[in-house]
Amino acid sequence: MIFSSDNWAGAHPVIAESLVRAAGGFASAYGTSELDRKVEKTLSAVFERDVAVFFVATGTAANSLALASTNRPGGHVLCHREAHVNADECGAPEFFSHGAKLAPVDGPDGKMDPNRLEKEIQRTRGGGVHGGQPMAVTMTQATEAGTVYSLDEIDAIAAIAKSFNLPLHMDGARFANALVTLGATPAEMTWKRGIDLLSFGGTKNGCWCAEALILFDTSKAEEMGYLRKRSAQLFSKSRFIAAQFDAYLEGDLWLDLARHANGMASRLAAGIEGSNSTRLAWPSGSNELFVVLKKETAAKLQADGAVFYDWPVPHTLSNSVAEDEGLYRLVTSFATTPDDVDRFLKAL
Amino acid sequence: MIFSSDNWAGAHPVIAESLVRAAGGFASAYGTSELDRKVEKTLSAVFERDVAVFFVATGTAANSLALASTNRPGGHVLCHREAHVNADECGAPEFFSHGAKLAPVDGPDGKMDPNRLEKEIQRTRGGGVHGGQPMAVTMTQATEAGTVYSLDEIDAIAAIAKSFNLPLHMDGARFANALVTLGATPAEMTWKRGIDLLSFGGTKNGCWCAEALILFDTSKAEEMGYLRKRSAQLFSKSRFIAAQFDAYLEGDLWLDLARHANGMASRLAAGIEGSNSTRLAWPSGSNELFVVLKKETAAKLQADGAVFYDWPVPHTLSNSVAEDEGLYRLVTSFATTPDDVDRFLKAL
Amino acid sequence: MIFSSDNWAGAHPVIAESLVRAAGGFASAYGTSELDRKVEKTLSAVFERDVAVFFVATGTAANSLALASTNRPGGHVLCHREAHVNADECGAPEFFSHGAKLAPVDGPDGKMDPNRLEKEIQRTRGGGVHGGQPMAVTMTQATEAGTVYSLDEIDAIAAIAKSFNLPLHMDGARFANALVTLGATPAEMTWKRGIDLLSFGGTKNGCWCAEALILFDTSKAEEMGYLRKRSAQLFSKSRFIAAQFDAYLEGDLWLDLARHANGMASRLAAGIEGSNSTRLAWPSGSNELFVVLKKETAAKLQADGAVFYDWPVPHTLSNSVAEDEGLYRLVTSFATTPDDVDRFLKAL
Amino acid sequence: MIFSSDNWAGAHPVIAESLVRAAGGFASAYGTSELDRKVEKTLSAVFERDVAVFFVATGTAANSLALASTNRPGGHVLCHREAHVNADECGAPEFFSHGAKLAPVDGPDGKMDPNRLEKEIQRTRGGGVHGGQPMAVTMTQATEAGTVYSLDEIDAIAAIAKSFNLPLHMDGARFANALVTLGATPAEMTWKRGIDLLSFGGTKNGCWCAEALILFDTSKAEEMGYLRKRSAQLFSKSRFIAAQFDAYLEGDLWLDLARHANGMASRLAAGIEGSNSTRLAWPSGSNELFVVLKKETAAKLQADGAVFYDWPVPHTLSNSVAEDEGLYRLVTSFATTPDDVDRFLKAL
Repeated sequence: MIFSSDNWAGAHPVIAESLVRAAGGFASAYGTSELDRKVEKTLSAVFERDVAVFFVATGTAANSLALASTNRPGGHVLCHREAHVNADECGAPEFFSHGAKLAPVDGPDGKMDPNRLEKEIQRTRGGGVHGGQPMAVTMTQATEAGTVYSLDEIDAIAAIAKSFNLPLHMDGARFANALVTLGATPAEMTWKRGIDLLSFGGTKNGCWCAEALILFDTSKAEEMGYLRKRSAQLFSKSRFIAAQFDAYLEGDLWLDLARHANGMASRLAAGIEGSNSTRLAWPSGSNELFVVLKKETAAKLQADGAVFYDWPVPHTLSNSVAEDEGLYRLVTSFATTPDDVDRFLKAL
Repeated sequence: MIFSSDNWAGAHPVIAESLVRAAGGFASAYGTSELDRKVEKTLSAVFERDVAVFFVATGTAANSLALASTNRPGGHVLCHREAHVNADECGAPEFFSHGAKLAPVDGPDGKMDPNRLEKEIQRTRGGGVHGGQPMAVTMTQATEAGTVYSLDEIDAIAAIAKSFNLPLHMDGARFANALVTLGATPAEMTWKRGIDLLSFGGTKNGCWCAEALILFDTSKAEEMGYLRKRSAQLFSKSRFIAAQFDAYLEGDLWLDLARHANGMASRLAAGIEGSNSTRLAWPSGSNELFVVLKKETAAKLQADGAVFYDWPVPHTLSNSVAEDEGLYRLVTSFATTPDDVDRFLKAL
Repeated sequence: MIFSSDNWAGAHPVIAESLVRAAGGFASAYGTSELDRKVEKTLSAVFERDVAVFFVATGTAANSLALASTNRPGGHVLCHREAHVNADECGAPEFFSHGAKLAPVDGPDGKMDPNRLEKEIQRTRGGGVHGGQPMAVTMTQATEAGTVYSLDEIDAIAAIAKSFNLPLHMDGARFANALVTLGATPAEMTWKRGIDLLSFGGTKNGCWCAEALILFDTSKAEEMGYLRKRSAQLFSKSRFIAAQFDAYLEGDLWLDLARHANGMASRLAAGIEGSNSTRLAWPSGSNELFVVLKKETAAKLQADGAVFYDWPVPHTLSNSVAEDEGLYRLVTSFATTPDDVDRFLKAL
Repeated sequence: MIFSSDNWAGAHPVIAESLVRAAGGFASAYGTSELDRKVEKTLSAVFERDVAVFFVATGTAANSLALASTNRPGGHVLCHREAHVNADECGAPEFFSHGAKLAPVDGPDGKMDPNRLEKEIQRTRGGGVHGGQPMAVTMTQATEAGTVYSLDEIDAIAAIAKSFNLPLHMDGARFANALVTLGATPAEMTWKRGIDLLSFGGTKNGCWCAEALILFDTSKAEEMGYLRKRSAQLFSKSRFIAAQFDAYLEGDLWLDLARHANGMASRLAAGIEGSNSTRLAWPSGSNELFVVLKKETAAKLQADGAVFYDWPVPHTLSNSVAEDEGLYRLVTSFATTPDDVDRFLKAL
């Protein structure tokens, strides 16, 4: 009953085996091997256009490099207040961007409110050099609240970004989970909507360590090569990432794994919604659920062996969570079993 | 006949299998799993004292974080002119250190000359705030020239660093290769000589991706935790690094692999020294050889299928390499076979 | 009727003349002249203890260097949301601090609410390396709202900073204005309350360009010397700053100028409070007033030759400012005359 | 007999008086006043084209901002080894440029050798992402050795910079001194030769504090506005710089002052060349002389009241300076009198 995080799972066997298969022989280093090239081609096919692919060590690195590439002095990065870049990356985006400001935008269900986004951009522009300048917009899909922006909602954000000529980044740490929820293609959820840069995460969805920064504008690739190396993110034996992505993308394994994880979350959500002692804080859309439980109940579940985290109650929820209640996060993954879910619901 | 680099090899089968073994089940993330802890304990045993261990993505990251932790405004990092930090990291040490200056120190055989090191430190101190201030000394073991500092030579460098109260870092991308050459213990080659921070590399010696920054002063560990995360170098499924190191250190596999690679280099060196058409640029000591060849010979070898790199002739060699000659680097690894070596020597 | 800003005034004649007097002869550069030393001694006397003094070009530089000296990776600087460091310095504090986060704390009348400050510190500490770490607290005296922290209010902020072992900085761009309002001594308003670093501004109060960063802990002075030089803030002919401060501090000119500016603001405030078409947004305490006016009235005043700025309505006031009203800032200075004030009030 | 530095002089009386004249009245802040605009226009006239002008606090700031505006990750700035940016700015260019590397190029008489410059650029480009990338070339006019690049020599450097598409910066801390030596116009010595960015120094030549960064490509001005503010280099009462430049440029005062300083240096040089106990290290061309003296002689001169600095012997001179000799720098300024010179020569 491990619902603490999708990064508590290890690697899917197919992916681990791919690493073993690739271990023999020699191949050129620093991202130039045949396997690296193959994965780049596969990703271009997946996204239905030529893309530039940069393997990096962590999702934080992909996000931070994306934002660093948009760099402007005194720059503001518009993001949801709860976004990973703002709340959970220890200032990496600021460091990579030489001191950019993460400018939080509120909005319900973990999604930026387009009106507030526009107002915040205008506010920044109003301050002249003193106030700095907007530099990029970043959105998370699936969001940190476990919800998913609809294609229309992405359009609304993109329209504002474009109207101010700001690059638009998508943090896709749980890209596959959002994709299968929307039933969209990768192209439809990204560049066809106006996304310029994508953090494409594989780690949370069954890889050991497979994160890629994807540029839809390949003319920015040369500069990114230097940015990545300068950030100590260029792997020598880069094919160990390629080998993971190769297996991950082959035969749509990645979508199957996401469907499984989302399915487990739905099963959990159904059980929770059917209970009268608990409720979801936000609608469910991916493999993350945020649940309001009596603190007592949560403690009992944990004593019974369920592993999950307390979550800080955001100020938008502060009125709807009672004194004796808490907010808790439940995350499923490729490795979650129906039995795990059912045991949890039974304990609940 | 692949002698291009030790990072053209993949992973040793035992290490790849360890990744498969660790792939199942759940474990806590971000370096807190049992396997992570086990490796930390093993490394403390290996180094005969409590050490703080930070897994990172690349050797460049380990080096850059080590230097970043010594940060001083206007700081100078003293290093050999050919050091990886100075020549091959695209400014990562400068970026991580917010603009520190890499101050090159010359010396024969890829080793810093202690007298020049001292003079350069004094020169910097002489400039007041205008000239900046010395901040750290870093040495590479084995060096970029394939040579190895003797214990006495490490002592000489350490004595100078200590006399100016400067932290001393060792770039151990090929730590194991140097260790087996000296026949010293890890402790004897590091903290017993005055090394404060060590980049402990496993990738070039049989791992897929296993680099660790090791602090001998564990009181610096808390700050380093933030530095690492801010640099986007904290792996979520950190145990995939731990699994590699676990197999790497088990039963001294790491030393066996280094002995093998060094042995292949010695076999190659013996053949080269016995030839009258070629010679070594620097004495051999690890798994890297630098060879002076007629350009014609090099081209013929490459046509015969040998893979190795041209190397820029450093100014210290410029008088001893003729117009029709070039400098070439040959690197062996755990995956090099005696047959590879013998075929190369025969072709030569 | 210039109420746009205290930096629209030029220099007080006594200060300008001091520059002429100092122009002749030779003196050693980079802050080592006799005049530089004299001012340092005077400031030590003014603050009743040995202080380290660093002249810099701008208040932004003093603030940014102060915060840079407290640097921690992933660091958060706690400040009021409307603080100059957060709202008006184009990311200079973030740049100087290599990407620190300015963490806004709300509170009425431009002052941080101590409870919210404490909560925000605890929130940051709760996130482990992911959330970063608190690194410093900074308060503005007089505040950006024109109000003044009482000595007790400073004590409350300082107690929290100290309880978390965080350095406490005061942005004293309008230090003198606050001082004469409180009737306190410089020591009483700073280090006796727990202030560690002070931006001591002279520019807004009658100098051309005279800003100093003052360290109450002189053991930090050596490092600051390098920080200042690395930030391109070390003047060669430093005595041109010293000459201004020399005249500024002589015979308490600085306090007289502040008393005059505050007096003009009080005269203005009295007139405004007596009017029934307008009101103060916050209580008056220094030489800045924030006034709620009908937009129509404001436009008419401006047409009549009054110069002052619209001010963005902060969200805390959004309910109390009507649709047809605006928020306006009126600033007085050493150069404001009673006649200016009276003409403005008459026009109103 | 003060020959220590041109920054030991104060301000020329005409410039000091201009500050007094400008002190009254009100004017808009942050570089928007009429006087600011007037000086910008004057500089456009002086340079015979529209230029963008940014007043900053120090020459180090002008240099560092110029280089920061050319920023590229892993960037190398090519400069003479003895250049102020490399030797005397405590890492400010590196800090402003987020870790760029200052890549020293040698050459006689303080001037970059064009062949070496080209080789160093090619060497950097040869290393792929590992070696970083060339990002800018910077030259100092007059040089740190007191010499002056001829127009042809500037052409040679510019041709190389342009052939690699690199922006070319001129550090003109002693711009006027070089200009009057060459008898060229400001345009002829800068943009007509290919200079893109100029640090235009007034401080060493009779101002208190007047430095400007001049962009010949005005399309870069908007971004520079943010860079300057983010660096804490935007003066509020900016007209105090404008007032100095206004007087400095009026009636060619700046050229008269430079001619005087150079004339004093020539008088000194003539006397030194006529002596048989001493010699010039490099040909004289501006207001700086570097003299080889017996240490004993230098000590005696200093005992007699002459103030001048020992200078570190660069390695290019190490063979021509005897054990009992030293290298000494003598600098003249607008404030040096013929009598100072003659007394020094007599003492010699």
